[in-house]
Amino acid sequence: MKALVLEATRRIALRDIDLPQAVGPRDVKIRIHTVGICGSDVHYYTHGRIGPFKVEQPMVLGHEASGTVIETGAEVSHLSVGDRVCMEPGIPRFDSPATLRGMYNLDPDVRFWATPPVHGCLTASVVHPAAFTYRLPDNVSFAEGAIVEPLSIGLQAATKAKMKPGDTAVVIGAGTIGAMTALAALAGGAARVILADVVPAKLAHFAGNPAVTTVDVSRQPLADAVRAATQGWGADVVFEASGSTGAYDSLLDLVCPGGCAVLVGMPPGPVPLDVVAMQTREIRLESVFRYANIFPRALALISSGMIDVKPFISRKFAFSDGVKAFEEAAGGHPHDVKIQIEMD
Amino acid sequence: MKALVLEATRRIALRDIDLPQAVGPRDVKIRIHTVGICGSDVHYYTHGRIGPFKVEQPMVLGHEASGTVIETGAEVSHLSVGDRVCMEPGIPRFDSPATLRGMYNLDPDVRFWATPPVHGCLTASVVHPAAFTYRLPDNVSFAEGAIVEPLSIGLQAATKAKMKPGDTAVVIGAGTIGAMTALAALAGGAARVILADVVPAKLAHFAGNPAVTTVDVSRQPLADAVRAATQGWGADVVFEASGSTGAYDSLLDLVCPGGCAVLVGMPPGPVPLDVVAMQTREIRLESVFRYANIFPRALALISSGMIDVKPFISRKFAFSDGVKAFEEAAGGHPHDVKIQIEMD
Amino acid sequence: MKALVLEATRRIALRDIDLPQAVGPRDVKIRIHTVGICGSDVHYYTHGRIGPFKVEQPMVLGHEASGTVIETGAEVSHLSVGDRVCMEPGIPRFDSPATLRGMYNLDPDVRFWATPPVHGCLTASVVHPAAFTYRLPDNVSFAEGAIVEPLSIGLQAATKAKMKPGDTAVVIGAGTIGAMTALAALAGGAARVILADVVPAKLAHFAGNPAVTTVDVSRQPLADAVRAATQGWGADVVFEASGSTGAYDSLLDLVCPGGCAVLVGMPPGPVPLDVVAMQTREIRLESVFRYANIFPRALALISSGMIDVKPFISRKFAFSDGVKAFEEAAGGHPHDVKIQIEMD
Amino acid sequence: MKALVLEATRRIALRDIDLPQAVGPRDVKIRIHTVGICGSDVHYYTHGRIGPFKVEQPMVLGHEASGTVIETGAEVSHLSVGDRVCMEPGIPRFDSPATLRGMYNLDPDVRFWATPPVHGCLTASVVHPAAFTYRLPDNVSFAEGAIVEPLSIGLQAATKAKMKPGDTAVVIGAGTIGAMTALAALAGGAARVILADVVPAKLAHFAGNPAVTTVDVSRQPLADAVRAATQGWGADVVFEASGSTGAYDSLLDLVCPGGCAVLVGMPPGPVPLDVVAMQTREIRLESVFRYANIFPRALALISSGMIDVKPFISRKFAFSDGVKAFEEAAGGHPHDVKIQIEMD
Repeated sequence: MKALVLEATRRIALRDIDLPQAVGPRDVKIRIHTVGICGSDVHYYTHGRIGPFKVEQPMVLGHEASGTVIETGAEVSHLSVGDRVCMEPGIPRFDSPATLRGMYNLDPDVRFWATPPVHGCLTASVVHPAAFTYRLPDNVSFAEGAIVEPLSIGLQAATKAKMKPGDTAVVIGAGTIGAMTALAALAGGAARVILADVVPAKLAHFAGNPAVTTVDVSRQPLADAVRAATQGWGADVVFEASGSTGAYDSLLDLVCPGGCAVLVGMPPGPVPLDVVAMQTREIRLESVFRYANIFPRALALISSGMIDVKPFISRKFAFSDGVKAFEEAAGGHPHDVKIQIEMD
Repeated sequence: MKALVLEATRRIALRDIDLPQAVGPRDVKIRIHTVGICGSDVHYYTHGRIGPFKVEQPMVLGHEASGTVIETGAEVSHLSVGDRVCMEPGIPRFDSPATLRGMYNLDPDVRFWATPPVHGCLTASVVHPAAFTYRLPDNVSFAEGAIVEPLSIGLQAATKAKMKPGDTAVVIGAGTIGAMTALAALAGGAARVILADVVPAKLAHFAGNPAVTTVDVSRQPLADAVRAATQGWGADVVFEASGSTGAYDSLLDLVCPGGCAVLVGMPPGPVPLDVVAMQTREIRLESVFRYANIFPRALALISSGMIDVKPFISRKFAFSDGVKAFEEAAGGHPHDVKIQIEMD
Repeated sequence: MKALVLEATRRIALRDIDLPQAVGPRDVKIRIHTVGICGSDVHYYTHGRIGPFKVEQPMVLGHEASGTVIETGAEVSHLSVGDRVCMEPGIPRFDSPATLRGMYNLDPDVRFWATPPVHGCLTASVVHPAAFTYRLPDNVSFAEGAIVEPLSIGLQAATKAKMKPGDTAVVIGAGTIGAMTALAALAGGAARVILADVVPAKLAHFAGNPAVTTVDVSRQPLADAVRAATQGWGADVVFEASGSTGAYDSLLDLVCPGGCAVLVGMPPGPVPLDVVAMQTREIRLESVFRYANIFPRALALISSGMIDVKPFISRKFAFSDGVKAFEEAAGGHPHDVKIQIEMD
Repeated sequence: MKALVLEATRRIALRDIDLPQAVGPRDVKIRIHTVGICGSDVHYYTHGRIGPFKVEQPMVLGHEASGTVIETGAEVSHLSVGDRVCMEPGIPRFDSPATLRGMYNLDPDVRFWATPPVHGCLTASVVHPAAFTYRLPDNVSFAEGAIVEPLSIGLQAATKAKMKPGDTAVVIGAGTIGAMTALAALAGGAARVILADVVPAKLAHFAGNPAVTTVDVSRQPLADAVRAATQGWGADVVFEASGSTGAYDSLLDLVCPGGCAVLVGMPPGPVPLDVVAMQTREIRLESVFRYANIFPRALALISSGMIDVKPFISRKFAFSDGVKAFEEAAGGHPHDVKIQIEMD
C-alpha cells in the first residue's frame, strides 16, 4: 500500500509499504480521505525524534485523519460501510487501570499513530477500533473531520480548566494549538479570550472576533493587558500554549485569586515555578496530555456552528505532493495554521 | 419619592412613598434608569403572595434594575458618580456562614428587593451596597443591564451543571427563564440546546439559531427528540425551566449515563421522583436559588457578544405608564419575553 | 461443577451444573473460598425477580466472593497462581462509551454475577477478567475480601458525595448497606455520622464508636437530632440507605445549605420530591449504581485499619449448609449484618 | 494590657501595651487562655521579617489562640459570655470580591494576627468578629482549641486535594505542618499516608499508627517507597509540606496518573517544574494559603475523636515564661511539634 514514509531525518518517501489489514471483530477499515500535518509530524521529519521517541526504522507519518468506512468487523453495530468518519489516533489497552478510570490517554501502553514505532495514517487505508472511530455529521466536511484531533487538545485543556460561563481566559501562544485552545475556551464558557503572541500574523486570524483581544507581547507586557481587562483581578484561566520557557516568568501574575493555569505547551526543559506566588492566590495548575472522550464533543461543536474551524485550514496538498506539503509545513509560515493532505 | 407601589392584590399605584435614602460608608445611591418586570412582580400583583411571602403592606415593586451612580459612600473606591451600573437585588449579611462559604444567595437573612416586606426599585433612586453594584461596560445599554438579573439565573443553572465543552443540553420551557437558560447553556459550553415548549411562539425566538433545536412538545415527545439527537445516549444536562409537574414524568429519561438535571422552575407542589431510574444512570440533580457571583459574568458575556439579549427585550414602557406595563405583563403574551419600564 | 443453584422461587439446590471454564488470554481462574449472601441474592430466592430481572432458568447465586488464583491467561502479568484475591462481579464491555468515560458500572451491557441470566459465583471455581480480580493484601482475610463488594457500594456513595474533611453525615438505614455506608463516610471525611434506623439492634453495632450518633427514629424525629447536632445548620451529606419511601418526607430538611443527599437505597416506587425546598438550599442529589474503580480503595482501607469490617461479618456457613444459610439470611435477623458461606 | 511584644529581631518583652478594646455590634471580647507558638512567630523573632512583611514597630506575637468570651456585641446571637472558644486569626473585608466567592483567605485586605503591622493575641484579651470566633465542644480542651489553627492548614490542603476515600497520600515533611497534614489526610479519606522526613525523631510521632508508613529519606529514596506501596502506580495525592527546594526533584515522580500534588510548604525561591513530566500523567498542582471555612470542621474532627491532636502538644509554658517559650521554640527540638503558652 502507498504511504508517506519517514525513512530518516529530513527524508520522506511516497512509496509502497506493508501494513496489517486484518479487520478484527470490533474493528473497522477506513479509506483515508484527508490528513492534517501536525507539528509533531514535522518535528520527526526535521529532527528524527521527540524526547525519548526516536525514529529508528521507516515509519508512516500522520495522525489527524478522516475518511470513509469500507469494512466493519462482525461485532460493530454503530458504524456502516460508507460512513464518513474521523479517528482518534491513540489506542489504549481497553482494560487497563487508566482506561477503567476514564483517562485512557494516560495508559502507558497507548499505541499512538506516527509515534515510533507505531505507523501513522498517511496511507490509503487503515484498520482501527470501531470504538475510536466517529461518524461525521452530514454538515461536517472531511477537512473539518481531520482537524478534530488538534481541536480536541484545546477542548481537553478547556475541560481540565473546569471553566465557568463568563470566565476571562488568557491563551499564550497563537500557533495551531493556541488557536484551537482559544476556540475551545470560547466554546467552553469564556466571555473573552486574551490571545498573546509575538507574531502579529498569527494574531491576525482572530482579528474579526469581538470576544478575542489580541496582544502582541513584543510590544506590550501581557500582564498589563490582563490587568487592564480585569480591573486588576486577573484572569480566571490562563492557557499556556506556547511551550516557551519565558512564558513562565509572568504566568502566575496573570491568574486571579482561586484561578487556574492549564499547561498545554511543552517547554524544552524545566521551568521556574514561584510556589509562594502561586500559594498567595491559591492558584491551581492543570496539565494536558492529548485528550480523552473529546472527539464526539469536538464534532458536535463544529456541526452546530459553535466552533468554526474552516478559517484555520490554510492549504491543501494532494497525496502525490505529500513531500512538498511537509517541506511547506517545515517552513513554518505564520499564515499556515493547518496544512492538510488529501488522498487521491 | 415617586414609586410604583403594590397597594394590594391587583392594585398598583404610581405615587409618593417614603424610602430610606441615607448612604452608608460602603453604599452608593443610584438614579434608576430601567427596570424589567419579572414573573414574580406580576405574581405579587395578581395573587398578593408567593408561597410564604405575603404582601401585607404597600410595597414598591421591581428588582431588575440599571441606573446611574449619583452618590458614593466614604469607603467606596471602585465606583464613581456618573457610572452606569446594574444592581444585584438580594443583600445578605456579609459575615453570615452562607456568605463566608461563597453562597450568599442561601443566607436565610437575605433582604431581596420586592419580596415582602422589602421594597423594590421601581422608584427614582435607591441606596445599595457598593459591593452589589456593577459598572456597565461602555457597550452595554441600560436595557441590557436591567436584564442581567434573569440572565443570571440561567447562568447560575449552567454553572451548577458543571457543563463541559460540547455538552448536549435540553431546556424544558421557553419562557423568560427558559430563554435565558438556553442562552446561558450555549455560552457555558453546550454544542447544542434542545429547547422544548408547548407554545410555538415562544420557541420562535430561537428560530434562527443553528445550535438550537426547538421541540413543540404538544406535537412530539421530547424523549424521542433527545434520543434522536444523541443516538440514544441522552443529554449531558437537562434544565427544567418550566415549573411544570408534568415535566418530571420523562425528565430522567432525557439524561445520559452520569449526566445531570438542573431544577430551575418551581413546580406548585411535590413531584414524583423515580429513584431507581435515577440510580440506573447515576444521574445527579442540581437545584438553583437565584445566583451568587454571577452578575460580573453576565455583563462580560453581554459585552463580548457571546450572549445577545437584545432580541429578548420585547417592549418598553415609560414610568408614567407603569401600571399599564404591569397589565400587559400580566396578560402573558407569548411574544413578550421581557417587558421593561424606563424611568423618566 | 457443584454450585448453589436457584431453581425457582424459594427453591435452592446444591448440585452439579455445567459452567464455562475456558480461560482467555486476559482472564484468570479462581478457586472460590468465601461468598457473602447479599440482599439481592435473598430477594431472588424469595421473590424470583428484582424489577425487570426475572429468574427464568436455573441460576447460580452469589456475587460477593474471594478465593485463590489457580490459572492465569497468557497476557496476565499482575496476578500469579496462588494469589489470594477478590473479584468485582460486574463485567462491562471494555470499549463501551460508558467504560471509556470511567463509569463502566453504567454500561448497559454489563454482565453481573447472579443477575439473570448470568450465573453467580457460589461454585467451586470461576473464570474472570484479570482486570477485575484484585489481590488481597496479606493482612486481609478471605472473609474481609468477600465483604469488599457491599463496602464498595458505601464507598461509591461517599465518593459521589464529594465529601470534605470534617463533614457531618447522616445515614438513614442501618442494614448492611447502611452500615457499610456509615463506615465509608467516616473513612471518607466525616467527623460524625448520625445513623438512623427503627431497629435498635441494628444501631447497636455502632454503640462503641464515638464518632457515630445513633438515632432510633421510632422514638425521636431524625430532623430534631440533626438540627441539634448541627446547631440548626443541617448535615453536609445525607445518605439515604433504607430504601424506604417514608424517608423522603424529611430527607431535604436534614441537608444544610449547599449540601447533598446521596440516594443509595432503592424505594419500591416513585417518591415525592419537594423541588422548592430543594432549591431554597440549592441541595444536590446524587445517586449510586454499584461502583466503579472502588475495589482497590476498599482493600486499602481495610488493610490499613481505617475501616474495620470484621464486626459486621456475623455468621459463616459451610458450602454444604448453603441452603440453610439462605434460609437464615431470608429470616432477616437484625443482628446479622453479613452472612457468609465458606467453600469446602 | 500585658502582652508578649516583639520589640525587634531577637528581642521579646512581656510588657504593657495599649490595644483597642472597643467591642462593635458584631464583635466579641475574649479572655485569652492558650496560645500556640507558630513557626512564623519564631521566624519574626529570629529574622524580624517574613518576605515582604517586616516588623518595623513593636508587635504583639501569637495567632493560635483559645479563650473565653467575656463580652458580646449587641447583634451577636450565637455566642454568650462564658463560652469557651477559639478564633480564626485572619479578618477579611466581609464584602470583598474574594469573600463573596467563598475564599476570604485570599482577600488582599485580610488583617492577620501577628503579621506586621497587625498585633497578635499573646495578651490578656482581644476583640474579635463573632463570625470568626468558634465555640469549643465540651470535650475539646483549650489546648486543643489553640491547635485548631495549624490543623486547619492541613485540612485546607486535604480539602484542596479533593481526596477520595481510599486514596494513598504522601506527606513530605514531618514538622508541625506536615504532621497536621498527615492527620488531615487520614481524616479526609486516605487509606494510607507515607510520611517522609530526614529527621527520624519527627517520624517517631507516628510510630504507632498502622495507617502511616514513615520513610527516612536520608536512608531511602522516597520514590522507591511510594512505588513499592502502590505497585508502581503512584500516590493519588502528594502533600509537599517541607518547603524544601530539593523536594521538587522527585515530587512529580510520586504522583499517579491523573493525581495531584498540593503545595503547602513555602520554598525560599522558585523551584524547577518539569512540565512535560507533569503532562505525561496530567498531574494537577494545588496550592494552599491558610484556610477558609475550616475551623468548624477541625473542631468537629477533634471532638468526635477522628483526629487526636493531643500527642502533638509537646510542652506548655506559663505566660510569665513566654520569652523562654520562644527561645525553646527557636531551638527547633525535633520532639517539639507544638509548644503552647498558657495565660495566667
